[in-house]
Amino acid sequence: MAQARNTITAIKAPELQTSRWLNAPQPLTLASLRGKVVVLHTFQIFCPGCVQVGIPQAQKIHQEFDPDRVAVIGLHTVFEHHSAMGPDALEVFAYEYRLRFPIGIDKYEGEPQGVPMTMRAYQMQGTPTLVLIDKNGYIRLHKFGHISDLTVGFSIGALLSEEAEESSRSTESSETAASGAIDTSAICDTDGCNVK
Amino acid sequence: MAQARNTITAIKAPELQTSRWLNAPQPLTLASLRGKVVVLHTFQIFCPGCVQVGIPQAQKIHQEFDPDRVAVIGLHTVFEHHSAMGPDALEVFAYEYRLRFPIGIDKYEGEPQGVPMTMRAYQMQGTPTLVLIDKNGYIRLHKFGHISDLTVGFSIGALLSEEAEESSRSTESSETAASGAIDTSAICDTDGCNVK
Amino acid sequence: MAQARNTITAIKAPELQTSRWLNAPQPLTLASLRGKVVVLHTFQIFCPGCVQVGIPQAQKIHQEFDPDRVAVIGLHTVFEHHSAMGPDALEVFAYEYRLRFPIGIDKYEGEPQGVPMTMRAYQMQGTPTLVLIDKNGYIRLHKFGHISDLTVGFSIGALLSEEAEESSRSTESSETAASGAIDTSAICDTDGCNVK
Amino acid sequence: MAQARNTITAIKAPELQTSRWLNAPQPLTLASLRGKVVVLHTFQIFCPGCVQVGIPQAQKIHQEFDPDRVAVIGLHTVFEHHSAMGPDALEVFAYEYRLRFPIGIDKYEGEPQGVPMTMRAYQMQGTPTLVLIDKNGYIRLHKFGHISDLTVGFSIGALLSEEAEESSRSTESSETAASGAIDTSAICDTDGCNVK
Repeated sequence: MAQARNTITAIKAPELQTSRWLNAPQPLTLASLRGKVVVLHTFQIFCPGCVQVGIPQAQKIHQEFDPDRVAVIGLHTVFEHHSAMGPDALEVFAYEYRLRFPIGIDKYEGEPQGVPMTMRAYQMQGTPTLVLIDKNGYIRLHKFGHISDLTVGFSIGALLSEEAEESSRSTESSETAASGAIDTSAICDTDGCNVK
Repeated sequence: MAQARNTITAIKAPELQTSRWLNAPQPLTLASLRGKVVVLHTFQIFCPGCVQVGIPQAQKIHQEFDPDRVAVIGLHTVFEHHSAMGPDALEVFAYEYRLRFPIGIDKYEGEPQGVPMTMRAYQMQGTPTLVLIDKNGYIRLHKFGHISDLTVGFSIGALLSEEAEESSRSTESSETAASGAIDTSAICDTDGCNVK
Repeated sequence: MAQARNTITAIKAPELQTSRWLNAPQPLTLASLRGKVVVLHTFQIFCPGCVQVGIPQAQKIHQEFDPDRVAVIGLHTVFEHHSAMGPDALEVFAYEYRLRFPIGIDKYEGEPQGVPMTMRAYQMQGTPTLVLIDKNGYIRLHKFGHISDLTVGFSIGALLSEEAEESSRSTESSETAASGAIDTSAICDTDGCNVK
Repeated sequence: MAQARNTITAIKAPELQTSRWLNAPQPLTLASLRGKVVVLHTFQIFCPGCVQVGIPQAQKIHQEFDPDRVAVIGLHTVFEHHSAMGPDALEVFAYEYRLRFPIGIDKYEGEPQGVPMTMRAYQMQGTPTLVLIDKNGYIRLHKFGHISDLTVGFSIGALLSEEAEESSRSTESSETAASGAIDTSAICDTDGCNVK
């Protein structure tokens, strides 16, 4: 079945590391979203595949599903052209495209350069990347590039049907998909922008 | 949540009443599909909304999901222009559009005229109509017109997560959504063709 | 430039040979349309490429341009599955798809079989085929399969800018693109249905 | 006929006033393009209607037509969010969207603010705006928002059929569509971004 592709099972979703949020009264954490299915859409504002396909899909998910059960979160993971995709540019983009869901800005260890911290922790290949996190905080789908609405809808439906665990496993952070250094040169095609 | 619209809950799906099948070695029954989620796509070959949206969606579902768990079934429910939409025309249509899933032809009590029997039993408003039937044979979604891929995918994901019952409830036929006579005049718009 | 592809220049358009017309008070002839640019869209009602791309394009041309200067004409050229695509089926199709432009039915020498007469005279490869005929009755573009709106629009714009000749050349029928027998087996793909 | 809408006839196209060019070895002027049909596509990189419809249309025109006869030119007319849409951001955008046609940056009298000079001279309502300029340098079509490929193609075909004048009229600059001050607040919808 389609949703099985690109799935990394039983890995705890690393906590988001962000420098700023749009459309959110305060910084969001995955820990605070336990009990919901989380749809994490990572993108860059000048990535054609994100703007033309990924972002509209995230908007549809945000519009069609109940925010109390399905949390749509954008994550701006800039790994190229950092100076042109700063917070101000993102703010204009979100305003003009009328994005209403919370959007975090992925953090750097120092100055903006290379691959940001959350993107590295998830070992993402590029943008757009869609990550589905279950009610207990585990990564259940991790897809770089495009993924059909049927498959995303299916996966959300399946994850929502699962029980949330009584005790949060949010302390088991040693399971995270931490990665080492990733080379930062990138290239974009119709599918998305790759970290090479 | 979107999938709640047009849902008729806890109604046993009436058995299909068909005169012929395409793409099936022998006539299919819903009873024989217990344990699977059934996607019943009803259409007419000259209904623009069916040809342009409904049929392509049914094909995508058939391609993306495992046929051992999700059974996609077409049902040709001709309620207008009967002479132009006979079995031979359907066969040509299915061949040219390369439809691979089983397609039943809805049956009439005598000569082809008015609304056919399965369409009446389900009280369908027109074509296209999508019906999702759960593993135990109950109608869980019943939608006339278009429905987004996200919502269909979501509903299939949710229904697949449910348990199948030990004992089939297929005897409880008194619960069927039987209907009386339905007027047969019809009109098509971009959404579909209505029984009025 | 794109419009140059598939062009057969300086060939007089063979007169239409039809058995019946829809959306026309009386049979149309190309001779009667001298002075207008003629957009001849040939199709079959069960050809997916026609229904999904060719027909919508013909409808847009009919809606966007002045009928006194640009004559959109459909031609139903059935070269396969003749019994399923008879006049009654075409009539239902035209009604349900709300086609408003005149549609002729291509004629056979005897019973409907093989490639019809106009289709043979134009040596068409299959459906959909778009033919643009200039104000003086000459074929200026002849394209099997899809052709972009930009190119069709461009070609119409260029042809409309030309002068109509004083004396009609409609007697020069010896120049027609007459062809011999064409094998009738056919196959359809996403682009259209081929005469092989 | 569709192309008649939004047409301003017989107005000399004001010369472009630009601060910089991408994809051009040296600054382009309309004067140097006499004899060609000029397709001037004005846009902003964060205008959804530009990115989703206008830019792809300009790219198709650039790909389908002969650059020796049809000159496609982009003009970045930033009238809002100036700091986020500077030259560096435009360069990244053009690189990631693989734009190959020359793109000028509309000039300001001083610091980037308000409506830039060329946009004012053409009295544009917002972005996207498409302007077609004939071989003699006259504005023949001026359309804010979307315009169909059929109509754009038609207009290019008609303009290409016209003769270029022997003597350039480029001195008749008194005819330009100069405008006074334009208020700079803006709003975007699915069609484009308006200067209000």
